[in-house]
Amino acid sequence: MHPNDPVTAALAAYRDAVLAKDVDAFCALYDTDLHVFDLWGQWQHQGLADWRAMAEGWFGSLGDEHVVVEFADVHADLAQDLAVGHAFVRFSAQSAQGQTLRSLDNRLTLVMRRREGAWKIVHQHTSAPIEHASCKAMLQR
Amino acid sequence: MHPNDPVTAALAAYRDAVLAKDVDAFCALYDTDLHVFDLWGQWQHQGLADWRAMAEGWFGSLGDEHVVVEFADVHADLAQDLAVGHAFVRFSAQSAQGQTLRSLDNRLTLVMRRREGAWKIVHQHTSAPIEHASCKAMLQR
Repeated sequence: MHPNDPVTAALAAYRDAVLAKDVDAFCALYDTDLHVFDLWGQWQHQGLADWRAMAEGWFGSLGDEHVVVEFADVHADLAQDLAVGHAFVRFSAQSAQGQTLRSLDNRLTLVMRRREGAWKIVHQHTSAPIEHASCKAMLQR
Repeated sequence: MHPNDPVTAALAAYRDAVLAKDVDAFCALYDTDLHVFDLWGQWQHQGLADWRAMAEGWFGSLGDEHVVVEFADVHADLAQDLAVGHAFVRFSAQSAQGQTLRSLDNRLTLVMRRREGAWKIVHQHTSAPIEHASCKAMLQR
């Protein structure tokens, strides 16, 4: 896939918005009619208002830390106005001094739609695999 | 989405193959160049041989039990030869006498490609949300 494909562009913009803790830039990636299966705590999020509240809570909880996002094994596919992709994601919390404090790995699937010329995420699925014996999430790849 | 869309058809065929513990029918749903983020125990599966081994292990472990699969809140989208969908999935283990022994809920995202006229799953992502405090999977919706 070309580096300018919509999935790769969305991942770069996601990384920048999270690093900047910029709720507006983060929400600009998503369609208003969004559906998310997110890793943490609830079965789904529906609509951008719900997802915006998640972002506000996340970024607001960070204090003077920031979160560095890295993607690996990115795969993207496209047909007309529909794009899909998947990747591994590492979230690393860094102190104001740039020290890595902790990190966790996720798996990410994205579905994007082009509407009136703009690509937006309409579905996102993040997860970690579950250890069978303990039912605990594996958070380090 | 029309009930004959490729995602809805694949979900019905998945349910039938699991109920019958039919490894060949199960594998016929998937592209040889498959990528899976599965709920249990490992970060990814790549290629149909890997996924076939998972199905053989799963169906072979069931003894005289069988697994009833039910889908809810199915959403599907299509452009040319690319289709995507997501749903909730309930897996219920039943005894040979038809008693439900246990069940668990998953979230499912599917990506399908049409190649030489046939729709095949090229990417599948299943998961459960993780409880923040315990890091345990929530397996009942």
